Amino acid sequence: MTNTRTPYRTGVWLVGARGSVATTAIMGAAGVRDRITPTTGCVTESPDFAAAALPAFGDLVFGGHDVAETSLPKRAEQLAHAGVVPRQLPDLVQDDLTAADAEICPGTPAIEADRSQREIATILARDLRSFRERHELARVVVINVSSTEPQPDSRPEHAELSALEQALGDTVTNGQNILPASSLYAYAALQAGCSYVDFTPSLGARLPALDELARRQRLPYAGSDGKTGETLVKSALLPMFAARQLRVLSWSGTNLLGGGDGENLADPTNVTSKTASKQRAIGESLGYPVDGDVHIDYVPDLGEWKTAWDHISFEGFLGARMSMQFTWQGCDSSLAAPLVLDLARLLARAHETGHTGAVEDLAFFFKDPLGVEEHRLIPQYEMLRSFANSLGRTR
Amino acid sequence: MTNTRTPYRTGVWLVGARGSVATTAIMGAAGVRDRITPTTGCVTESPDFAAAALPAFGDLVFGGHDVAETSLPKRAEQLAHAGVVPRQLPDLVQDDLTAADAEICPGTPAIEADRSQREIATILARDLRSFRERHELARVVVINVSSTEPQPDSRPEHAELSALEQALGDTVTNGQNILPASSLYAYAALQAGCSYVDFTPSLGARLPALDELARRQRLPYAGSDGKTGETLVKSALLPMFAARQLRVLSWSGTNLLGGGDGENLADPTNVTSKTASKQRAIGESLGYPVDGDVHIDYVPDLGEWKTAWDHISFEGFLGARMSMQFTWQGCDSSLAAPLVLDLARLLARAHETGHTGAVEDLAFFFKDPLGVEEHRLIPQYEMLRSFANSLGRTR
Amino acid sequence: MTNTRTPYRTGVWLVGARGSVATTAIMGAAGVRDRITPTTGCVTESPDFAAAALPAFGDLVFGGHDVAETSLPKRAEQLAHAGVVPRQLPDLVQDDLTAADAEICPGTPAIEADRSQREIATILARDLRSFRERHELARVVVINVSSTEPQPDSRPEHAELSALEQALGDTVTNGQNILPASSLYAYAALQAGCSYVDFTPSLGARLPALDELARRQRLPYAGSDGKTGETLVKSALLPMFAARQLRVLSWSGTNLLGGGDGENLADPTNVTSKTASKQRAIGESLGYPVDGDVHIDYVPDLGEWKTAWDHISFEGFLGARMSMQFTWQGCDSSLAAPLVLDLARLLARAHETGHTGAVEDLAFFFKDPLGVEEHRLIPQYEMLRSFANSLGRTR
Amino acid sequence: MTNTRTPYRTGVWLVGARGSVATTAIMGAAGVRDRITPTTGCVTESPDFAAAALPAFGDLVFGGHDVAETSLPKRAEQLAHAGVVPRQLPDLVQDDLTAADAEICPGTPAIEADRSQREIATILARDLRSFRERHELARVVVINVSSTEPQPDSRPEHAELSALEQALGDTVTNGQNILPASSLYAYAALQAGCSYVDFTPSLGARLPALDELARRQRLPYAGSDGKTGETLVKSALLPMFAARQLRVLSWSGTNLLGGGDGENLADPTNVTSKTASKQRAIGESLGYPVDGDVHIDYVPDLGEWKTAWDHISFEGFLGARMSMQFTWQGCDSSLAAPLVLDLARLLARAHETGHTGAVEDLAFFFKDPLGVEEHRLIPQYEMLRSFANSLGRTR
Ligand SMILES: NC(=O)c1ccc[n+]([C@@H]2O[C@H](COP(=O)([O-])OP(=O)(O)OC[C@H]3O[C@@H](n4cnc5c(N)ncnc54)[C@H](O)[C@@H]3O)[C@@H](O)[C@H]2O)c1
Ligand SMILES: NC(=O)c1ccc[n+]([C@@H]2O[C@H](COP(=O)([O-])OP(=O)(O)OC[C@H]3O[C@@H](n4cnc5c(N)ncnc54)[C@H](O)[C@@H]3O)[C@@H](O)[C@H]2O)c1
Ligand SMILES: NC(=O)c1ccc[n+]([C@@H]2O[C@H](COP(=O)([O-])OP(=O)(O)OC[C@H]3O[C@@H](n4cnc5c(N)ncnc54)[C@H](O)[C@@H]3O)[C@@H](O)[C@H]2O)c1
Ligand SMILES: NC(=O)c1ccc[n+]([C@@H]2O[C@H](COP(=O)([O-])OP(=O)(O)OC[C@H]3O[C@@H](n4cnc5c(N)ncnc54)[C@H](O)[C@@H]3O)[C@@H](O)[C@H]2O)c1
Ligand code: NA
Ligand code: NA
Repeated sequence: MTNTRTPYRTGVWLVGARGSVATTAIMGAAGVRDRITPTTGCVTESPDFAAAALPAFGDLVFGGHDVAETSLPKRAEQLAHAGVVPRQLPDLVQDDLTAADAEICPGTPAIEADRSQREIATILARDLRSFRERHELARVVVINVSSTEPQPDSRPEHAELSALEQALGDTVTNGQNILPASSLYAYAALQAGCSYVDFTPSLGARLPALDELARRQRLPYAGSDGKTGETLVKSALLPMFAARQLRVLSWSGTNLLGGGDGENLADPTNVTSKTASKQRAIGESLGYPVDGDVHIDYVPDLGEWKTAWDHISFEGFLGARMSMQFTWQGCDSSLAAPLVLDLARLLARAHETGHTGAVEDLAFFFKDPLGVEEHRLIPQYEMLRSFANSLGRTR
Repeated sequence: MTNTRTPYRTGVWLVGARGSVATTAIMGAAGVRDRITPTTGCVTESPDFAAAALPAFGDLVFGGHDVAETSLPKRAEQLAHAGVVPRQLPDLVQDDLTAADAEICPGTPAIEADRSQREIATILARDLRSFRERHELARVVVINVSSTEPQPDSRPEHAELSALEQALGDTVTNGQNILPASSLYAYAALQAGCSYVDFTPSLGARLPALDELARRQRLPYAGSDGKTGETLVKSALLPMFAARQLRVLSWSGTNLLGGGDGENLADPTNVTSKTASKQRAIGESLGYPVDGDVHIDYVPDLGEWKTAWDHISFEGFLGARMSMQFTWQGCDSSLAAPLVLDLARLLARAHETGHTGAVEDLAFFFKDPLGVEEHRLIPQYEMLRSFANSLGRTR
Repeated sequence: MTNTRTPYRTGVWLVGARGSVATTAIMGAAGVRDRITPTTGCVTESPDFAAAALPAFGDLVFGGHDVAETSLPKRAEQLAHAGVVPRQLPDLVQDDLTAADAEICPGTPAIEADRSQREIATILARDLRSFRERHELARVVVINVSSTEPQPDSRPEHAELSALEQALGDTVTNGQNILPASSLYAYAALQAGCSYVDFTPSLGARLPALDELARRQRLPYAGSDGKTGETLVKSALLPMFAARQLRVLSWSGTNLLGGGDGENLADPTNVTSKTASKQRAIGESLGYPVDGDVHIDYVPDLGEWKTAWDHISFEGFLGARMSMQFTWQGCDSSLAAPLVLDLARLLARAHETGHTGAVEDLAFFFKDPLGVEEHRLIPQYEMLRSFANSLGRTR
Repeated sequence: MTNTRTPYRTGVWLVGARGSVATTAIMGAAGVRDRITPTTGCVTESPDFAAAALPAFGDLVFGGHDVAETSLPKRAEQLAHAGVVPRQLPDLVQDDLTAADAEICPGTPAIEADRSQREIATILARDLRSFRERHELARVVVINVSSTEPQPDSRPEHAELSALEQALGDTVTNGQNILPASSLYAYAALQAGCSYVDFTPSLGARLPALDELARRQRLPYAGSDGKTGETLVKSALLPMFAARQLRVLSWSGTNLLGGGDGENLADPTNVTSKTASKQRAIGESLGYPVDGDVHIDYVPDLGEWKTAWDHISFEGFLGARMSMQFTWQGCDSSLAAPLVLDLARLLARAHETGHTGAVEDLAFFFKDPLGVEEHRLIPQYEMLRSFANSLGRTR
């Protein structure tokens, strides 16, 4: 894709910058820029986005927060060993990995305790501003690709920005945080003038108080939960059943996954937020309740690979019972990383062209899209395509 | 769905009227009319079609051609025994089955030999006119749901109507037919002022000469090959891979089917036309060639049920290899019959509102849609929806 | 199979006599006796059992305990409607269903409270003796096919018969039963001189105290948990991996089931005893630990049918990672009922020929076989075959 | 496994020595000898074979015939790149690969034409004798792992050794060979005093004339067609259906494979011999005919990996219809190579202990075992185990 705009540099700040998705995205951006690897899996590389004036891959500069110590070059080695990226890629983009690694700051639970969440947010925001200034970036997109958090209890302070800011000032005692980490990152991003994307099912910016902040700061944000595996297929298949007036009776699913994400999701607390967002789509798409459970099992030997099996029973004309099963064997990081790059490019351009608040036209990318009724994948794609066109038209 | 139009009667003439699909459609129309069975699987019963002024189920009158002797009530019993329709349904709609059976005339190979194909067409057309007049029908839709034929060789007479009509006058000798049966039925239908739908992969109306005839007679026609199983799923999944820029490397499929259709398709000559239409969609949808074979196996014990297994291998970002498999276990007649009713209603209304020639907006229903580039299911649905709206707007 | 022995009548007393498995078994025995239905699924109808001198199907007389009110003819109708048994079978064996239904006595929770478990056991045993006497039966086999119970806490009284009998005398207060229902049925059976089979994963006779009782009464017993679906396949596949020295890394499973059994197992308490017995086999077969979870989901629309999906990952020579998946779509009652009849015939003959205590040679039939190391299906079959031969040799 | 016998060296001569299976076997033997890799997948490494006095891995010396030019170290690189063997393995066993490569002689179609097959056989036998002498080998096992050949027409000369030897003397004209290559290799092996194993479905030693030669030479031989994927699973599952008296109605299969083997089998002529040997097992195991086709499709992007899908429909008690499907995703070379090593060790020892003619006790290893009725995997394993014990007892 040729990109006719004047080049300028865009920051991509990854929360969870040393995770699998982040590391794959950083390597991939360098690989595509250097034409070492094709753009397979990058939605914004379709001709449909040619006129959207998105930043080029080569204009992206990476940094981030993490609490892990393993360096990016080391993580890259591990991913190459696991077959997620080609053997030789980490070496070929060694400089980019080293450079990005140098831009990784300690994440929130790593910042020493006995501080108020406001103080922590100030540190996080300072990291972002420093990154933007040192690299003379036109703007920075913060993308949360850190471990999924347990769904926190809702609190009254979440409803309004002034109440939230007041509460954040209190020293954190006995672990009673006002905001979960993802939302604190979102708060800091917006404070620092950065757009925010939540690629995880964590709470992130999905709070009235943070929406208020985004609008006040005139910043766009997007989310939640990158749509990569089983749910991607669901959003392609459910509209088929619906358009054909077939009645879905049950939709059951089992997800087997290894890797860091699998280990984390195996903790039943975290699973809940994930499986809830997975099941939501079905009922909303069809307009009637459907039986079935979704399981997420941690199977260490699967490594970075995931196997999902779904079983759908449905009823046809005159009551005939039928079924469909599918097995999806995917590499989650390979599926997620190009979407992270797509979102970085789209949010940067949305920010540039003055979008504020939740960007609903990005539903195509998310399992649990903000403020959107449309759960059908292809109509979501059409929304995205129109959005890209509008980005192109704006000066 | 309430239907605000003045009722009037519409003929549905089924070529292959004693087959599984036809019998299920006839029973289903009666069941829905009498509110014995729900409208599951009927696309035109979605609210999206409420304003299209389609004929009501109760306004449909059935007849057809067949070469089989087994009566409709008997076929209905067999289908109930096989679990395709509820046990008690054949009894409940006994009168409708008997009435439709009385309207079945001998099909073309049953008509005595030593005639020219023009003479045979005249007999077929006379059957149609007689049916329309005796029942005082506003119009008749002819739908081919007879056994799939071998793909015939193309002939020069197929290119132009005048040449075709000339050739049809020759006495048929040594089995060298000018037209295959499906096209002769289409010719007769158009001659008799009836619209024509080909629900099979046979040649039907897909000839320049017959297109010329349809336009001269100011009649609409549609086809080909009802999209019910594996191909339906394909048209839902292929756009997912495409929109995500994932590279499909291979798509392999095996279809196990029993029933009359399975037995017929097991004959390698006929299979070819079917598997060719199945594979066509993949290449056209993606814009690049994809490896893989499609097999159709006759497995008698599966009866009216079909099991299809598809395996898709694809490549993601940075070359990661992934795969998806699905197994579809469907009852073909249950899936096909409501579409036959949908098509009858839509063609009748299209005829009424003055559409002529190939109706391209019906691609949603077909594996091998006439004159249409769009192979993505949901955009096809949106085309259909607009078409329905336009039908409603026309007086 | 011809059976050369002098006919005499054998009682089959089913705990849970109005359940799906019991009803199917009762119908099936009548159907086979009258040669209306073939003996498909009956292990003891193989030529390998021709010389074992087992009671003929026609010599079996049915009765049982249940707490449900729905009559056997009514349950039979439901099973025919669900497609488990042929439509016309309930009518054809109507007399047998009515006769067996008349022999069903109220089960234990239906017996009025404020009694000691010893008093309840006395009632149950009296039902058994009365059945045997009224029908002049040579002997009675009690088979538990009632709903699976939660796994009870182990108690000191379970270890020794004298302590157990003492404790059973106490009036049951605040629901603190000494024995779960299944074990109370086993106790009553043994007291009444009947052999006992547990086809469920419930505790049943698996207590030192009850083993003592069986030996004292010179009675055989067998169990536990009929091996019908996923576990049956496991016991066929695990030996393949083992014999080939392939290293199984993980074995994950999801079971979707409707029906009464599904509803009951959906209660997490009961599931535990079931999934525990399912996973036990893997580790024991292979001799090393294997990752993976097993889920049991209740999916009402599946009715009497079950779908199980298993995913196995394994390692080959030089570390190659491979996988196997299977989907099993079975009708549990059809699979279980003939085994119940097999077990009735085998236990009756074992009793006759003087076997006492746990019959380990029946491991072939059970998920969790009593006192047996051999988990490989075909060697279990060979054990069974030798056992049958030994039954034939005994006078 | 410790091996208490006095070490002595055994030749393993691989026909097709530069193919995937052969290359993996050669690397694996070195890796196991040097304790770089575990013995996963090696049947003879089970404790059951400890006393069989088999040659140690370190005592195996490799050579072979091939018509390919790509060197073993190069093939090893390709296999490592494809993920069949660990990345670093080719380097670690470089010396072994180079040494074996130096022992590869040109295979038969590479030997210049215009010779009689007897002359060619003489050259092949000379290669074998030279190999045995130069390395001072106790004996040599010839194993055919070359490309599967089309099934040749049977000829009268195949029936008797004297007729065969006479016919072989004629100069080969117009491609009318008396023996296919695999049988010519077998003939040369037996002439040279070497035992012979056919790991492919080709004709090999399966001729009365060659059996006569083997007996005359007092040599053992074994085959045919290594049982690695779908058929392995079949031989584990079929006995389950049989022992449970379930009636298998149809067994359908599709095999998707890339690699050299896939490309070769895609040629319909060769497929036939393969699919025939695959289907044979079903009927013989069950004793009644079963519907279903087996397909082998070449899907290049699958590389060295194979995906097989099988669908089994079966009937249970009272006619209930059920089904099972499985998907096997295996790396054929990883599955085959350790069996090739197992067979080399077992044949060497069989030769040493005086076995002559077809060794039927090795059925466990083959899809189409010579002269064996037993198709059940685990009983075949028990046969093998007894055989191993007998090998140990012989001096
Ligand atoms: N890969 C996909 O297909 C996909 C799809 C949807 C959502 N997600 C989500 O993306 C996230 C990342 O996935 P992954 O596979 O890269 O996981 P990962 O475990 O490899 O990486 C997560 C990273 O987040 C870091 N982290 C944890 N807590 C942090 C904190 N408080 N602050 C900063 N960093 C922190 C960890 O140290 C780790 O480096 C997960 O939440 C996952 O659920 C992934
Ligand atoms: N059921 C589906 O999902 C589906 C989908 C797409 C296409 N189709 C096609 O629809 C057709 C009908 O399928 P079915 O399952 O009802 O098959 P079927 O075999 O049950 O019925 C076909 C009927 O056509 C009749 N027939 C054969 N030749 C004829 C002729 N020359 N003139 C008139 N009648 C003739 C037969 O006697 C039979 O009654 C097949 O061509 C099938 O390929 C079906
Ligand atoms: N069907 C199989 O393949 C299979 C395999 C292994 C084990 N089992 C076990 O067999 C049992 C029966 O299965 P099903 O499908 O027939 O279940 P079901 O729910 O249809 O029948 C169970 C019957 O037990 C009765 N019951 C419950 N509590 C009782 C009590 N205390 N005393 C007497 N009767 C009582 C119920 O009223 C019901 O009639 C279950 O425990 C199941 O787990 C079944
Ligand atoms: N891998 C398995 O699981 C498995 C199982 C059963 C049987 N087999 C059979 O084993 C054989 C080898 O499989 P592979 O994957 O290694 O195939 P491959 O294509 O990688 O290797 C075959 C080798 O045979 C050589 N060859 C061809 N014709 C020859 C001739 N006339 N003389 C000498 N060499 C010749 C080729 O050059 C090639 O190097 C095939 O016949 C296959 O069908 C393999
Ligand atoms: Na599950
Ligand atoms: Na196939």
